[in-house]
Amino acid sequence: MTLLVAVVIISQMNFIDKLAAIVRKNQSRLCIGLDPDLALMPEGTGVFEFNKAIIDATCDLVCAYKPQFAFYEAMGQEGMEALRQTIKYIPGDIVIIGDAKRGDIGNTSKAYARAIFDDLGCDAATVNPYLGFDSIEPFIAYHEKGVFILCRTSNPGAADFQSLRCEILPRKDGPRALFEVVAQKAAQWNKYGNIGLVVGATSPEELKQIRQSYPEVPLLIPGIGAQGGDLALTVRYGADSKGERTIINSSRQIIYASRGKDFAAAARRAALALRDDINRLLTSP
Amino acid sequence: MTLLVAVVIISQMNFIDKLAAIVRKNQSRLCIGLDPDLALMPEGTGVFEFNKAIIDATCDLVCAYKPQFAFYEAMGQEGMEALRQTIKYIPGDIVIIGDAKRGDIGNTSKAYARAIFDDLGCDAATVNPYLGFDSIEPFIAYHEKGVFILCRTSNPGAADFQSLRCEILPRKDGPRALFEVVAQKAAQWNKYGNIGLVVGATSPEELKQIRQSYPEVPLLIPGIGAQGGDLALTVRYGADSKGERTIINSSRQIIYASRGKDFAAAARRAALALRDDINRLLTSP
Repeated sequence: MTLLVAVVIISQMNFIDKLAAIVRKNQSRLCIGLDPDLALMPEGTGVFEFNKAIIDATCDLVCAYKPQFAFYEAMGQEGMEALRQTIKYIPGDIVIIGDAKRGDIGNTSKAYARAIFDDLGCDAATVNPYLGFDSIEPFIAYHEKGVFILCRTSNPGAADFQSLRCEILPRKDGPRALFEVVAQKAAQWNKYGNIGLVVGATSPEELKQIRQSYPEVPLLIPGIGAQGGDLALTVRYGADSKGERTIINSSRQIIYASRGKDFAAAARRAALALRDDINRLLTSP
Repeated sequence: MTLLVAVVIISQMNFIDKLAAIVRKNQSRLCIGLDPDLALMPEGTGVFEFNKAIIDATCDLVCAYKPQFAFYEAMGQEGMEALRQTIKYIPGDIVIIGDAKRGDIGNTSKAYARAIFDDLGCDAATVNPYLGFDSIEPFIAYHEKGVFILCRTSNPGAADFQSLRCEILPRKDGPRALFEVVAQKAAQWNKYGNIGLVVGATSPEELKQIRQSYPEVPLLIPGIGAQGGDLALTVRYGADSKGERTIINSSRQIIYASRGKDFAAAARRAALALRDDINRLLTSP
């Protein structure tokens, strides 16, 4: 009876509260990216089997898991089935971020939101802002779900468009980078308090700027580890005051810490070290 | 033997040639969007069954079919299976555009390109430019496939970011709208000749501007019909000189022309009328 009530409460909890609760419970701001790559996984290990072992080994150390849809889609039906199984297997109090970077005209985005939230059952999704408000609104309309809008991404091409300086009318303080305009619009659209931003660890100055302008916004920060972002700068510039709205993602550095049969134990060691590094940096003066 | 040779030639043809060949064969610039919506389909009709009937009724009238992935994903595994069956069923000489609007960091975009081109077998894909070059490069790397980059989309939110005026360095003729910068970058990236642009019929001035600047670029033009774009302006402003690199999409206006048991016949009538209207407008002075 008590268990049943607890389950109901978790499923009704909104995204922000669920995130804060698991950050406190696991003392962790670490998100592990579940990006299965057959070339890097131990030979003969199935995708779900691999994810299950990673989850079993790390679920007391993370606040979130972030399956990257591309890797499952590339494996066809079998991959999508493994994604489904993985999402179902993740303990109910951990945040699941569907990293799908979707965005389309309103009518179509509604179908994508249904796919990610209703059909697959994720707690949050990443979305692309290029198509503007009506492409994101169907996601925001799920008040209890989290919506992470791409702001300044962690890849080299991010500068191609996101850093272009745009005229803002009425002009007050000169042109602003596109990613800042995106953050500004996101703040205006955030009437249900369920919008977050994706800002890469590879651009610490931009991260600093966004956190200073939006101290309360949940940030999903990819780009440490394989992509080269600096952890100390990420925590110094990216963390919110309570450290409850800052999600630092690592994928390859953890799940491929070993490519042998000890991959799960190696992932646990890597996750533990990274979680503790983040916490140490958070409390260091 | 002759048939076998023909099949091999088609499968080796690059996207631009395949498009030109089917435009000539079917005398058509019409693309039908295969966007299954259970609320609009005749009751009791399965998704593949519905698409099959539409394809049977219209495959001599189109240059392309464009399945919108969101609608299939929203129906879970059954939906994705119907997408697979649909793609396999489309005759080999007709262009299949996977409307997925994907885009992610390079490593991940590579997996999306694999999913759409290798696993599903589409001839072309739509991609989102927000993440810049390395997010699109893995798609372009499939030289024989078409890559339609979102430029100026057909939805109301398009103006939120795509119309922002951005500084271009070195400054020659003042700031340009973001969508123009995207078109310019796309032209620079187009070393294999397989890049096209998505420009909505709902913004005829922008369409005119893009076609004038890039007379040879393949354009995928959504937004006539349910979204309100004007067909005459679309053809006048959007068509290339030979009319072989202009794909005008219609979804709901055709596939839901009737919601009764006569849906396929009604779709044929609507497709025939639209194809002929486009051709008439193309040749009218």
